Amino acid sequence: MNDTAPRLIRSVGVWLVASLTALVATADEGMWLFNALPKDYLKQKYGFEPTDAWADHVMKSSVRFNVGGSASFISSTGLVLTNHHVGSDTLHKLSTAEHNYAEDGFYAKTLKDEIPAPDLELNQLVAIVDVTDRVKSAVKKGMSAAEALKARRAVIAQIEKESKDATGLRSDVVTLYGGGRYHLYRYKRYTDVRLVWAPEAAIAFFGGDADNFEYPRYCLDACIFRVYENGKPAKIEHFLKWSTDGVREKELVFVSGNPGRTSRISTLAALKHQRDVRLPYVLNFIRRREIMLQQFGLEGVEQERRAKDGLFGIQNSRKALGGMLQGLQDPRLMQRKAEEEQKLLAAVDRDPRLSEARAAWEQIARLQKRRTALQGKGVSLNTRLFRIAQTLVQMAAEDQKPNAERLPEFRDSGRDSLLQQLFSPAPIYKDLEQATLADLISWMIELRGGDDPLVEKILQGKGPRDRAADLVMGTRLDQVAFRKKLADGGADAIASCDDPMIVLARVVDDEARAVRKERDEIGELERQAYGKIAEVLFAVKGTSTYPDATFTLRLAFGPVKGYVEDGKPVPAWTTMGGAFEHEKRHGGKEPWKLPASWIAAKQTMDGETPFNFVCTADIVGGNSGSPVINRRGELVGLIFDGNIQSLTADYVYDDKVSRAVSVDARAIREALANIYHADRIVRELGK
Amino acid sequence: MNDTAPRLIRSVGVWLVASLTALVATADEGMWLFNALPKDYLKQKYGFEPTDAWADHVMKSSVRFNVGGSASFISSTGLVLTNHHVGSDTLHKLSTAEHNYAEDGFYAKTLKDEIPAPDLELNQLVAIVDVTDRVKSAVKKGMSAAEALKARRAVIAQIEKESKDATGLRSDVVTLYGGGRYHLYRYKRYTDVRLVWAPEAAIAFFGGDADNFEYPRYCLDACIFRVYENGKPAKIEHFLKWSTDGVREKELVFVSGNPGRTSRISTLAALKHQRDVRLPYVLNFIRRREIMLQQFGLEGVEQERRAKDGLFGIQNSRKALGGMLQGLQDPRLMQRKAEEEQKLLAAVDRDPRLSEARAAWEQIARLQKRRTALQGKGVSLNTRLFRIAQTLVQMAAEDQKPNAERLPEFRDSGRDSLLQQLFSPAPIYKDLEQATLADLISWMIELRGGDDPLVEKILQGKGPRDRAADLVMGTRLDQVAFRKKLADGGADAIASCDDPMIVLARVVDDEARAVRKERDEIGELERQAYGKIAEVLFAVKGTSTYPDATFTLRLAFGPVKGYVEDGKPVPAWTTMGGAFEHEKRHGGKEPWKLPASWIAAKQTMDGETPFNFVCTADIVGGNSGSPVINRRGELVGLIFDGNIQSLTADYVYDDKVSRAVSVDARAIREALANIYHADRIVRELGK
Repeated sequence: MNDTAPRLIRSVGVWLVASLTALVATADEGMWLFNALPKDYLKQKYGFEPTDAWADHVMKSSVRFNVGGSASFISSTGLVLTNHHVGSDTLHKLSTAEHNYAEDGFYAKTLKDEIPAPDLELNQLVAIVDVTDRVKSAVKKGMSAAEALKARRAVIAQIEKESKDATGLRSDVVTLYGGGRYHLYRYKRYTDVRLVWAPEAAIAFFGGDADNFEYPRYCLDACIFRVYENGKPAKIEHFLKWSTDGVREKELVFVSGNPGRTSRISTLAALKHQRDVRLPYVLNFIRRREIMLQQFGLEGVEQERRAKDGLFGIQNSRKALGGMLQGLQDPRLMQRKAEEEQKLLAAVDRDPRLSEARAAWEQIARLQKRRTALQGKGVSLNTRLFRIAQTLVQMAAEDQKPNAERLPEFRDSGRDSLLQQLFSPAPIYKDLEQATLADLISWMIELRGGDDPLVEKILQGKGPRDRAADLVMGTRLDQVAFRKKLADGGADAIASCDDPMIVLARVVDDEARAVRKERDEIGELERQAYGKIAEVLFAVKGTSTYPDATFTLRLAFGPVKGYVEDGKPVPAWTTMGGAFEHEKRHGGKEPWKLPASWIAAKQTMDGETPFNFVCTADIVGGNSGSPVINRRGELVGLIFDGNIQSLTADYVYDDKVSRAVSVDARAIREALANIYHADRIVRELGK
Repeated sequence: MNDTAPRLIRSVGVWLVASLTALVATADEGMWLFNALPKDYLKQKYGFEPTDAWADHVMKSSVRFNVGGSASFISSTGLVLTNHHVGSDTLHKLSTAEHNYAEDGFYAKTLKDEIPAPDLELNQLVAIVDVTDRVKSAVKKGMSAAEALKARRAVIAQIEKESKDATGLRSDVVTLYGGGRYHLYRYKRYTDVRLVWAPEAAIAFFGGDADNFEYPRYCLDACIFRVYENGKPAKIEHFLKWSTDGVREKELVFVSGNPGRTSRISTLAALKHQRDVRLPYVLNFIRRREIMLQQFGLEGVEQERRAKDGLFGIQNSRKALGGMLQGLQDPRLMQRKAEEEQKLLAAVDRDPRLSEARAAWEQIARLQKRRTALQGKGVSLNTRLFRIAQTLVQMAAEDQKPNAERLPEFRDSGRDSLLQQLFSPAPIYKDLEQATLADLISWMIELRGGDDPLVEKILQGKGPRDRAADLVMGTRLDQVAFRKKLADGGADAIASCDDPMIVLARVVDDEARAVRKERDEIGELERQAYGKIAEVLFAVKGTSTYPDATFTLRLAFGPVKGYVEDGKPVPAWTTMGGAFEHEKRHGGKEPWKLPASWIAAKQTMDGETPFNFVCTADIVGGNSGSPVINRRGELVGLIFDGNIQSLTADYVYDDKVSRAVSVDARAIREALANIYHADRIVRELGK
């Protein structure tokens, strides 16, 4: 929905429901906080006791791609391993009609050939501080939602600013258990990030949309970047060594990454809102965008290239969210959720100390109605150029206020990251912007009706296509220098600017802010309600639980393990040689056409090399690019997908048939050495 | 939306708004009734006076494909020319995994090789009788909507039955001017229809979805059938002779065909309903179906083949309806419509005899609110198997009632056509049925909410996919003999049947009928209101107007004429040789890949032969396959599309840039002779 949201493997950016701890952690369920690992469980079940040093090493070897994914350091010289589909945003931004790195792959033969990404920000988590008491105490009893929101924002802004000033580190206060706990996360930021190696899209995403979320798979969904500091490869203390002997069937593995959003403990009312209101709405939009991008791509080879990155993301979201909706539409899943909720409510009724919490469930049910009323309201014109305009307009206004009172994204502590995005030199394709904006204006007319006063102000008497052409062709916001000039000029520059896109952002600002205000107030009231439910959970289940995913670092785990589907066993592994058979089975037609590099290396590579494998670790979107690690803290794999049965993981964990899908580290190494001849990289990885 | 609706070039089957006469017939506007041709206008502007004999000849040479298209007789021996995309329904039904006639084309080398279509019905209009007075007098003042509907249905059923009994001909009472006039149309039915020739899809739909509704074009969108009687080629008295010298620039041509639905005189309130409610809803569904069919096709080559016919139809609809919505979302078009309405209302205010009519506009505005409330209600499970079940269940119930009281589709007069469809031996692909039904159940949950009682009855505790599998795998309705047995068994057989699809149709019947009743009542009230508005129009504009399209035979006309787009002239014609250049411009990639037959004939065919051309005739969906005729009543072309600028033709006619697109008759002949070597057919056409 919002193109600025992190693009995660399961597109969880579109999920807005508050998240909470899991009700019942069964089997190897859980996305655990690094400062609260399930040490007892691991010791008891697997005889493994993660030391603090082990946890610290894994945490600091892990990397977050702010664009919406996970990664890891894999050398002392700054090499970073992630998925091709996490790097693809950058690959597309670096590509041109002449050099299509996203499609054809890339290898920097020397250090000098490594290409700087235009706007990547990588984060390394270095410390976690519990600030729950300070945040909670700022909100007093009897405050209205607006007052509470203001107070909470103020204290969080203050905490972040103090931390940033004291340490120089990116400092984010994270809401956990939907409002039950608040932790301050400190990150080291890397913003000089360069592309080292990427394979062809044909093998990174072998089988395309058809094979996506399926298993068995044959994908080299990997690429390598390098972080620099002061123009030189950064020196990295904590990085993952490449396992020399790989991973075996039934072996316990760990996944360290940033799952985006889950809703495991949403109340039944909140899940029904997702089922009946939010997901259908989002999926309608997704299909609309998918068709729009397909149509744009039909116009020519270059248009197809320009549309491709967006198309991949949207198709991925459509399949993922479609799977989630299927889950919610299954009465059996809802029945299970209803029973769990009944148990919690029974506990509330038994314990007088918890009786106040009953109102929290009712509150959340009421808030879903407010959410429903908000659906389709607001201003949905999120093209890149419009977002730039809106950011400039709102930043100028927000900067007039004290730091503590601003909208969170305009706080001082986040300004570096904000400006990096705002001044990104990544190419903006005006033809694609225009088609996108025309469709969004049409959509807004559909949502608000053609006689809506705001629609009339936007259209200025023209149809959506003509109006989009005026706006996109007329704006100068595609020029970074113009953006900088406007940002430097502040409120005066914005007020006097006649750039049509800035004018549009000004025209719609009141409405955008009104809807934002309502949404934020609902969020605040939900945080308060879920905070109370969290206390019930802690009382009933103890505090040895994990909070719902928040796109922050978590540790999941489980054995490598095949499964049974329609009565047939699905082995845990595929092999690189299997890719050739998979191509043959599909007649070598796209998207099952192997790249020339693989055809050429067929005889010399080791076809027996394990290629993809599955394990039971509890992951969702955002985990894409997460390292899979063995007990010794070595790299054995690279998460890139979940199978189709795992798509209900937003609500329930299951280890019968749900699986996380990884590229085997041995395949990456074999490919680097014997297909892509990336010898200097192989040397850097050590043996 | 409803797969049983005629599939017209612009998918007008989804249009439900009442239609009316055009306000102002400017330029060469108009889809004229054959019993009310604009003789004066033609004489004055073009010096052409169509005689009664000319009109009768053209009318009887015209053919309607009940599946949703137009055609013409082109020989005394029963040959029928239409579009490939009109015949494609049959081409797909005749195709198998082994013989893909829809894709690869077909030519019957001898009469014996001509293949019978499984369920085609072709109609030849032979007589029109005005029955307005009899229909109107059946509805008395003071009747409620339900009473009026019942009375109107009864008199129409009676008229149709009398006509059928007296003549043996198919007899349909057609509502014209939205309720201002009622005409009885008598048709000769042809039900033994055989496939003679079809080209490859690659050239019939050259450029695919990308080129659809664009111009210039290079499509051989043609195919030939033959009607039989008593097992022999039917003897046809009225057929179109092939023009020997073709058509020239600026020459006046006529189009005789069956435009589906237009809404030129819908009130502003009705148009706003289309803009803000109906079209967005339909387009959401269309995108959903398009994605579903794409996904199904990804599963394999055979699945792709099975999905293709549906995919073409849905993509065509998406582009057509998208264009219509763009038109309605343009304030300039709505402004023009508002001004026209104001003029009419001013006339009402000036003339005391018309004052009663003012209420009609208000009534229609109120009815749009009832339409809005109905949106998404009802039972939307229209797969082929479900429709068969529903037809059987409803037919058994309706047949208990006297003929005059039944739902119109179950009247005695239409029983032959109904049973032909119901007992069609056309293949039913259970895998595609299952995927479609699962998606429709999901959609119904989205529309009604997961807690809806009817949804619970449909799901029976399972998710949509599992439930669809039970229903489709469990039903025997794919067997024609089983359908016949149930139909013969009547109400008892239906009541005791435990086939899961029949059970489902019984479970949802109350709800389906309740929604149908409300929709029919709205329709009745709209007919009454538009009937009054029609009288205003006749008073203001005179009766020399044409009614909105009703998928019945009309005559349109206009000169062959290029146009100017973005400042550049677009010539009226393309040539067959141009197809090779068009292929080259697109790198020979699908869908711009010419078939082998064309490559082979490149040197021997005449590349200068005119291929496609445009004229200004006023057409919409349903006109696909219409013959283009010169003053001498000879065939010069074959309508197959409109350009993108013509997509607002549902509301307004324009001859500046809107164009009807045809295959030149000379190209069809050249292809038959020198590419497909269909010598016996060329001989039958005469020289």
